[in-house]
Amino acid sequence: MGESPVRFFNQIQDEMKKIYTIIALSAAALAFSQKPLEKVEPAFWWKGMKNPELQILVYGKDIAKNEVELSDGIQIKNIQKVENPNYVFLTVNTNEINVPQFKINIKNRKKNIGSYTYQLKQRQPDSADRDSFTSKDVIYLIMPDRFANGNPANDNTKDTAEKSNRKDPGGRHGGDIEGIIKNLDYLKDMGVTAVWNTPLLEDNEPSYSYHGYAQSDYYKIDPRYGSNEDYQRLASELHKRDMKLIMDYVTNHWGSQSWIIKDLPSKDWIHYWKEGEKGFKRSNYRMTTQFDTNAAKTDAENCMDGWFDTTMPDMNQSNPLVVNYMVQNAVWWTEFAGLDGLRVDTYSYNDKKGIAEWTKRITDEYPNLNIVGEVWMHDQAQMSYWQKDSKIAAIENYNSHLPSVMDFTLHDAIGHVFKENSGWDSGIQRVYDNFANDFLYPNINNILVFAENHDTQRFNQSYPNIQDYKLAMTLILTVRGIPQLYYGSEIGMAGDKGKGDGDIRRDFPGGWNGDSNNAFVKSGRTDSQNQYFDFTKKLLNWRKSKEVIHTGKTLHYVPENNVYVYFRYNDKERVMTVINNNTEAQVLNLKRFSEGIKNVSKGKDIISGKEVSLENSLNIPAKTSMIIEL
Amino acid sequence: MGESPVRFFNQIQDEMKKIYTIIALSAAALAFSQKPLEKVEPAFWWKGMKNPELQILVYGKDIAKNEVELSDGIQIKNIQKVENPNYVFLTVNTNEINVPQFKINIKNRKKNIGSYTYQLKQRQPDSADRDSFTSKDVIYLIMPDRFANGNPANDNTKDTAEKSNRKDPGGRHGGDIEGIIKNLDYLKDMGVTAVWNTPLLEDNEPSYSYHGYAQSDYYKIDPRYGSNEDYQRLASELHKRDMKLIMDYVTNHWGSQSWIIKDLPSKDWIHYWKEGEKGFKRSNYRMTTQFDTNAAKTDAENCMDGWFDTTMPDMNQSNPLVVNYMVQNAVWWTEFAGLDGLRVDTYSYNDKKGIAEWTKRITDEYPNLNIVGEVWMHDQAQMSYWQKDSKIAAIENYNSHLPSVMDFTLHDAIGHVFKENSGWDSGIQRVYDNFANDFLYPNINNILVFAENHDTQRFNQSYPNIQDYKLAMTLILTVRGIPQLYYGSEIGMAGDKGKGDGDIRRDFPGGWNGDSNNAFVKSGRTDSQNQYFDFTKKLLNWRKSKEVIHTGKTLHYVPENNVYVYFRYNDKERVMTVINNNTEAQVLNLKRFSEGIKNVSKGKDIISGKEVSLENSLNIPAKTSMIIEL
Repeated sequence: MGESPVRFFNQIQDEMKKIYTIIALSAAALAFSQKPLEKVEPAFWWKGMKNPELQILVYGKDIAKNEVELSDGIQIKNIQKVENPNYVFLTVNTNEINVPQFKINIKNRKKNIGSYTYQLKQRQPDSADRDSFTSKDVIYLIMPDRFANGNPANDNTKDTAEKSNRKDPGGRHGGDIEGIIKNLDYLKDMGVTAVWNTPLLEDNEPSYSYHGYAQSDYYKIDPRYGSNEDYQRLASELHKRDMKLIMDYVTNHWGSQSWIIKDLPSKDWIHYWKEGEKGFKRSNYRMTTQFDTNAAKTDAENCMDGWFDTTMPDMNQSNPLVVNYMVQNAVWWTEFAGLDGLRVDTYSYNDKKGIAEWTKRITDEYPNLNIVGEVWMHDQAQMSYWQKDSKIAAIENYNSHLPSVMDFTLHDAIGHVFKENSGWDSGIQRVYDNFANDFLYPNINNILVFAENHDTQRFNQSYPNIQDYKLAMTLILTVRGIPQLYYGSEIGMAGDKGKGDGDIRRDFPGGWNGDSNNAFVKSGRTDSQNQYFDFTKKLLNWRKSKEVIHTGKTLHYVPENNVYVYFRYNDKERVMTVINNNTEAQVLNLKRFSEGIKNVSKGKDIISGKEVSLENSLNIPAKTSMIIEL
Repeated sequence: MGESPVRFFNQIQDEMKKIYTIIALSAAALAFSQKPLEKVEPAFWWKGMKNPELQILVYGKDIAKNEVELSDGIQIKNIQKVENPNYVFLTVNTNEINVPQFKINIKNRKKNIGSYTYQLKQRQPDSADRDSFTSKDVIYLIMPDRFANGNPANDNTKDTAEKSNRKDPGGRHGGDIEGIIKNLDYLKDMGVTAVWNTPLLEDNEPSYSYHGYAQSDYYKIDPRYGSNEDYQRLASELHKRDMKLIMDYVTNHWGSQSWIIKDLPSKDWIHYWKEGEKGFKRSNYRMTTQFDTNAAKTDAENCMDGWFDTTMPDMNQSNPLVVNYMVQNAVWWTEFAGLDGLRVDTYSYNDKKGIAEWTKRITDEYPNLNIVGEVWMHDQAQMSYWQKDSKIAAIENYNSHLPSVMDFTLHDAIGHVFKENSGWDSGIQRVYDNFANDFLYPNINNILVFAENHDTQRFNQSYPNIQDYKLAMTLILTVRGIPQLYYGSEIGMAGDKGKGDGDIRRDFPGGWNGDSNNAFVKSGRTDSQNQYFDFTKKLLNWRKSKEVIHTGKTLHYVPENNVYVYFRYNDKERVMTVINNNTEAQVLNLKRFSEGIKNVSKGKDIISGKEVSLENSLNIPAKTSMIIEL
């Protein structure tokens, strides 16, 4: 999400004083339906899903007061009406439907006043058993508005409120799907194997809409990014290159401009809605209340039910209609675009049971689909809690069913480690200490490892020296888990969170016509940019085929003198990584590492390309790393 | 133990460079046995133990080359001989022995060359089912050498090396068991219900012996503290006053001057012993290696097997004879002195399996006996690992069987909280965050809570203002767990760990003849000392009968403006604690706390003694706490 809890802290302290203060949403003007049949969601579906049940939302003026019938003698298993007469929810069993399309007819006194042709398409072969992103991959995180403007013609559209203004750090800059597609060869060349982009669905907020986390239409790509078909094309262009597409999915909150939010099916679709007006209460962001057995109910409720921000009504996943809408929507995009995985925003702010149901139902449908949740906590037991089959969550009989979490404690450590000297719990020891708790996680290979993302200080801002970048990349790319890079860092881009999110989300140079520096091509990059890029490319391409890094076990040694030594190993291969975080050269007595080196007398450092003797001692220059194939 | 790992850090870094360097112990002169029968341990035993097996260590010159027989036709189930011929270990079944005493005869060519009369005594009634310390208690931690010198005649003895020198902060000052006994009424008056004293067994190191953690005789009270019978008397004097005695037990290491260490039964009684000489290798103190699945074997071995300090050979609890010796010794003291519980030093440095066996066997013998282990870690999942039936340890199929651990993360928080302003993760929030992880512990009421101990900075040094002392005592004495106080803090004693351990272990004023300030009596205390004492006494005596504090549940609220509000409750009672850590007075809107207050309109603050209205808002002065009975 766009902001970290800490930044909101003072704000919370103020707001908490005026609990239940209701403020009018900026977009209070409601767009109620005028036609008898205005919208059908999902717009179409597929035959042959594991779960044959389909719940169709049908929206139109006073539709609940009319009759709804299906053609071809298709039985409606259930018609669910809600507070708002503009909605009905029809449940059908797709296994019982033997026609490729049928009609939904709206009748008033037996007269047809609206009709919709509903298609049931054929699934792609092996759709259910699709592969997903794994620890074999390296994920590249893109903010689409800030990456590349492939189609300047869609920078502004009639039906979207905010207009482009590249001079505004918090405004829309024009980046789009076409821009990503045009630069896939750049990513492929670098060695990236999967792309996670921040949300592309329509976010029609009047301002600050570029981040896309206040989505206004869950079935529509924002036209300033392209069309639904462009998104399909992005997936297929990635697949052509053996790369994967991960969708950034937001379950916790929808945008204030969502048509459903503007004309809620019932008040209990969102939290803190009060009769006759729309409510707002900021979350306290205290995620520990989700499992803390001592927590006050009001604090827990406030965490889960409070809004992430003023423009983001908090969705009520304890309402089965809401969960079902979100399950079907995520399945729809997976099926429609051919997704290879999901990243879920603010996972741990959701209703705990509802989000577990959502996650389970999606992974029941696609057993191999990987889903990584944003669980921004600072304690490994707490992060483990949210991973599928966690023994820690089992203490409370909870199971999120979420396959993957993010290693935020490693991120915390990285924020300090490269500027610190050796100490009992400082310097590279912080990283060792992080991995010392690996046993707490039920699936240690399915954890996202990263030095930064779109919500954090840029790594190159904290550490302007390329030496530190190399140490961090060495670490991220050789430890257990799924590495995730953040666009632009591979060419040395910096950015200061303290100056606002705009600064950590600057435009990628070369993404806009007329950019003087085009970092997408070698000849356009500065010498410095090429140094960052070449190092990144070397490691990523090396990592691709290294099964021992993808799934090998870890053997690590207590750091001495700020040097961290660890091995990844399986039955076939072993790799020794040495990270000298000391500002002086070090000589390692290799006898200490015999459990990892075994009887190997030499290896090859893939960073320097040189052969390394492993017989007695190893000299390693200051602030340097080695990745030695044994 | 005497030192925290952090303080050793630089030392370790140096020492690790010379791994396996062997240094001669200062006490290398060995005192080998000259007589055919020199020692028998345990010196006597009891009939009717749950475990009828008894293993008797019999020591004498070349005893293993002679014959050993028992009188009265008593069968020896097993004679175990070891590397050193000066030892035999005889196993008997006490259920099969129907005489109150029998002889152990040593024979050479059928001629009796030594004899020992072995007694089997009757146990005290209900010995097996004795009660122990629980969360009903408040424990007072005493360093006997520094508390009170009740018998100046035993300050020096012929058979102990170090002589008293009260001017040396690291020397012996003369405090003793008599000194504790003489001041039990002081403790009783204060409201203390249990005493944990640091070790009283003989520590015959030539210097720095006062702390007692390098014990030289596991069956003998150090004569400078008194006799074994004095220790029995301490227990009975405590019991007369409804108070409990907790023995500080050291399994991890013995002192270099131990007669067994000087003439080891076999090399594998201790770690890092090399043929023909005694070994020393300092522990790396990296306790995470005990469970870290990535840890190098050498690092793990070095943690567990390395020595805590040069004078403290590390015991090998994977040797069954060693474990058995320690089990029987702890049982012997429990039975002999009438102990009410054990505190185990450096618990997490022990051999993991061996210490679990030790703990299980003792608690099998005494099912209600509480044992609290020193598990000095900084992560709750890691501390939970060591508590009996931990679900976290169960991940690795481990169970320590240790009933109680120490809340070191709370101690970490207390080190910061009272000097910090409110912040996302600072100020009183640190304390809230600690309790947010309570669900990780298998038995949350059986956790020691403390602001300081004999190894840490003195609380009153970090926080010289009595206001902060009151806030800390309010916290410690109203949260879940077993509060532990440290001698002298109740009269405001300070002490700077940075100046060395001597400074945090100063003499209690009034414990020595001629002390100008006698803080043991009201009239001898300064006004300031009386303020500290009176506050402590008030809370301790109030807490005694408060079942809701001993075993009630906790309900706590996310702190706002550096104010922490929590409730303890059960079916009968409720107590609301308010800790205002803000340097300004605060007004609390009480609506927020309705889950805890329910429909109660007023309560009584036991600190001020005043009635408090709970109807609308609550005013609380800066840096003040309230304990409100609802």
